[in-house]
Amino acid sequence: MEFLVRTENLLPHDTPDATRDELRRGERERAVELRREGVLKRLWRVPGRNATVGLYEAEDPAALHDALTSLPMWKWMDVTVEALATHPQEK
Amino acid sequence: MEFLVRTENLLPHDTPDATRDELRRGERERAVELRREGVLKRLWRVPGRNATVGLYEAEDPAALHDALTSLPMWKWMDVTVEALATHPQEK
Amino acid sequence: MEFLVRTENLLPHDTPDATRDELRRGERERAVELRREGVLKRLWRVPGRNATVGLYEAEDPAALHDALTSLPMWKWMDVTVEALATHPQEK
Amino acid sequence: MEFLVRTENLLPHDTPDATRDELRRGERERAVELRREGVLKRLWRVPGRNATVGLYEAEDPAALHDALTSLPMWKWMDVTVEALATHPQEK
Amino acid sequence: MEFLVRTENLLPHDTPDATRDELRRGERERAVELRREGVLKRLWRVPGRNATVGLYEAEDPAALHDALTSLPMWKWMDVTVEALATHPQEK
Amino acid sequence: MEFLVRTENLLPHDTPDATRDELRRGERERAVELRREGVLKRLWRVPGRNATVGLYEAEDPAALHDALTSLPMWKWMDVTVEALATHPQEK
Amino acid sequence: MEFLVRTENLLPHDTPDATRDELRRGERERAVELRREGVLKRLWRVPGRNATVGLYEAEDPAALHDALTSLPMWKWMDVTVEALATHPQEK
Amino acid sequence: MEFLVRTENLLPHDTPDATRDELRRGERERAVELRREGVLKRLWRVPGRNATVGLYEAEDPAALHDALTSLPMWKWMDVTVEALATHPQEK
Amino acid sequence: MEFLVRTENLLPHDTPDATRDELRRGERERAVELRREGVLKRLWRVPGRNATVGLYEAEDPAALHDALTSLPMWKWMDVTVEALATHPQEK
Amino acid sequence: MEFLVRTENLLPHDTPDATRDELRRGERERAVELRREGVLKRLWRVPGRNATVGLYEAEDPAALHDALTSLPMWKWMDVTVEALATHPQEK
Repeated sequence: MEFLVRTENLLPHDTPDATRDELRRGERERAVELRREGVLKRLWRVPGRNATVGLYEAEDPAALHDALTSLPMWKWMDVTVEALATHPQEK
Repeated sequence: MEFLVRTENLLPHDTPDATRDELRRGERERAVELRREGVLKRLWRVPGRNATVGLYEAEDPAALHDALTSLPMWKWMDVTVEALATHPQEK
Repeated sequence: MEFLVRTENLLPHDTPDATRDELRRGERERAVELRREGVLKRLWRVPGRNATVGLYEAEDPAALHDALTSLPMWKWMDVTVEALATHPQEK
Repeated sequence: MEFLVRTENLLPHDTPDATRDELRRGERERAVELRREGVLKRLWRVPGRNATVGLYEAEDPAALHDALTSLPMWKWMDVTVEALATHPQEK
Repeated sequence: MEFLVRTENLLPHDTPDATRDELRRGERERAVELRREGVLKRLWRVPGRNATVGLYEAEDPAALHDALTSLPMWKWMDVTVEALATHPQEK
Repeated sequence: MEFLVRTENLLPHDTPDATRDELRRGERERAVELRREGVLKRLWRVPGRNATVGLYEAEDPAALHDALTSLPMWKWMDVTVEALATHPQEK
Repeated sequence: MEFLVRTENLLPHDTPDATRDELRRGERERAVELRREGVLKRLWRVPGRNATVGLYEAEDPAALHDALTSLPMWKWMDVTVEALATHPQEK
Repeated sequence: MEFLVRTENLLPHDTPDATRDELRRGERERAVELRREGVLKRLWRVPGRNATVGLYEAEDPAALHDALTSLPMWKWMDVTVEALATHPQEK
Repeated sequence: MEFLVRTENLLPHDTPDATRDELRRGERERAVELRREGVLKRLWRVPGRNATVGLYEAEDPAALHDALTSLPMWKWMDVTVEALATHPQEK
Repeated sequence: MEFLVRTENLLPHDTPDATRDELRRGERERAVELRREGVLKRLWRVPGRNATVGLYEAEDPAALHDALTSLPMWKWMDVTVEALATHPQEK
C-alpha cells in the first residue's frame, strides 16, 4: 500500500556543521537504500522550506514506521503520514 | 491492518421518517455483517453527537474504502480515516 | 513541474442518478485523456471519502488550472493545489 | 467507561541515552501493569511519529488521569483524552 | 462524573414561529426535568449567540448522550462534550 | 458575572523540585483564598493534562485578571477566559 | 465593561430586496438607539466583507446579549464576543 | 496603500447560465475600470479554484471596501483583505 | 485610518527583574507618547493573559509598523494587525 | 511563473547585534541581486511583525527554492509559498 509522507526538519539552528553534514550524508545513503527496496518511490521538496513530501510503499503502517525511523534525521523530523487507497482508475 | 474511523452523520433534518428508518435498519444490518467478517471490530458513539468512532480491520485502505461505502448511510456521512501501526508492546 | 492536487466531490446528494452517472462517465473519459497527455500521473482515493489525491504535471499553474477545469465534475469539486519542487535526490 | 487517548512524546532530543532508556523501561513496565489491571486495553503507534493512540478503560476521568500520570514519561507527553459512549450496537 | 457541554442551535431561519415556539417550550420543560434529576447542573448563554455552555452530571458518556438526545431541539443542535476530572482541591 | 477559565501549566520540565513544590503550595493556598472570597467557584482537571477548567465569579474582566495573576503559578500558565451570560432558565 | 463584538451577516442571497431594505433600516434605527444608550460605542466595517467589528459597553454579558439580540438582523448574524479588561494605563 | 485581496466565488451551482454570463461580463467590465483607476493592480487565479488573489491600491480600507463591493459578483464572493506595509527596500 | 492591534508578550520567564522592570517602564513611557500623538487611542487587557488589544490610528500600515516597533517590548511581542474600515453609520 | 511568498523571521532574540547586523546586510544585498535578476518583484512588510509578503517570479518551484535558500537569513525564516496562476484578464 502507498502512503503520502510529509516531513519538516527541525534540526536546531546551532547544530555544528560537522554533525549536520554527517546527518545529511547518512540521510541520503539511507534514502538510496529505501529507494532500492521500493519503499521510497518519489520525493519532492516543499518549496521555500526544509521539508519534503514523499510517496512511500510499505506492507502496512508498522513497516512504514520502521522505514521512516531508520532515517538518521528522523529524531528531528516532524512527520505526518496519510494512507492512500488505490483508485479504481489505476487498476 | 487497523484503522480508526470517525463518522459524522449529515442526513438532512427534513428526511422523511420512513426513509430515515429504512436507512438505519440497513445500516445496522450491514454493520452486523461487517462485524461477522471481522472488518468492524469496535464502535463507539461520540457523546452528544450523531457521530461514531470505530475500530476497523482491513487488508488495505482500498478494502476499508469498499467496506465503508457499502454502508447505506455512507452517502450522507462525513468520514475520516486514520491508519494505525501495530505497537511493539502488542506483538 | 509537478503538483499535488486534492479534490473533494461536493455533488449534491439529491442529484438524479442519470446526471450523476453521466458526470462520472465524462469524468473518467477526461481523466483518461489527461493521463495520455501526461498531465495526470497518479490518482489515489482518500479512504472513506468521495475525495482524491492526484499527482499532476503541467507547464505552469495556469496550464494545471485549465486541465482541472476541463473535468466535467470540476464545478462541484473543492480543489486544493500544492506546487512541488524537484528534490535533488531525484535529479 | 472507555477513553481514546493520544500521546505525543516531547522528550528533548538531547536527553542522555541512559535517562531515555530508563524512562522507556519504566514506561513499558507501567504499561504492562495497566494492561493487567484492565486500564490499558489497546495501544497503537501513529506511523512516522513518536506518538500513540490508546484505548483505555477507567471508572471515570479522574481515575484515568491517575493512570496516565503514573506513566514515567507522562511529564514529557502531550496527552489528549476523548471520552467515548458505548454504542447501542455493542450492548 | 461531570461534563462541560456546548451547544449551537442550528434551527433553520425559516422555521415557522409555531414550530419554533413549540420546540422551545418542549426544550424548557425537558431542561427542568433534567435539572430535577440532577443531570443539568448549570446553564449559561454564550453572549451574542444562540448557543449555550452547560455543566452536566451523568453516570457515564452513554447516559449523558441519552439525556442530551432527549432534548426536543437536539436534532438541530451542534453539541460538543468534554469530560472533566474531579480536581483534588475539591475532594 | 461568571467566567469559564482554562489554564495550561507550562512550567519547564527542568524546574527544581523544591521550586515546583513551593509554587504548588502557594498555588493551593491562593486558590483556597479565592474560594473563600467567592471568586473561584469550581475547578476541574482536564484529564491527562497539567491543565484545568475553572468557574470563576468576578465583578468584571479586570477584577478576574487581578485574581488570576495573583496565583503564584500564573507566570507559567497559558490562560484563556470566556465570559458567560446568565441563562434565563437560571433566573 | 467593554466588549469587542464581531458580526458576519449571513442573510441569504435570495432575500427579496424589500425584506432586505426593511431589515437594514430597522438595523440602523436600533443601532442609533444603542449608541444613544451608550451601549454601542464604535463600529467598523471589516473591509471587503458584510461584517463588522464593534466596541460595546454593557453592565454584563447578559445585558450585552439582550442588546445584540434586539438588532433586527441578529437572527442572520454570526456573532462572536470578547470581553475586554480595562488596562491600567487607561485608569 | 496596498492590499492583498483574496476572493472565493460562491455563486450557486444552479445559477442559470444567462445570469452567470451576465455577472461575469459585468465583473470583467468593472475590473477593467478598477485597473484604469489604478485600484486593481494585479490579479491571479488560485489554481484549481474559482478564486483569485489580487493586489489593490486604495486610499484607505473604506475606499477599498467601496471598490470591492462595486463588483457585480461581490454579493456571492467570500473576500478577505490584508493591509500591507511598504517595505523599506522598496522606498 | 484605524487598526485593531493584538499583542502577546513573550518575554522569557527567566528575564531578570531589573531588565523586565526597565522594559515595562520604557513601554509605558512610549505608550504615553503614542497616546499624545494620537496613534494609540484605546488599550485593553485580554483578561488572564499578558496580552493586549489596542485601537490605533496611523496614516498607513507603514506608519503603524513604525509606531509598534518603537515600543521597547516589541522585540518580544507577537503582534497581529487588522485594518478597519470606517462604517457609514459613523460618518 | 509567479509565487506569493510569506516569511516570518525567527532569529533568536539573544542573537548578538553584530551577527544580526551582518545577516541583515547580507539579506539586503542578496535581495538587491534577486531584484536585478527579476526573481524578487515586490516586497511588503506585514505590519507589526518581523515578516514579509513577497511576489517572486521563477522558472519553477525548484528555482524559487534555490533563490529563497540563497538568502542569508533563510535558515531562521519560516517560509510558505503559494503558486499563482496567470489570470485571463492579464493576458
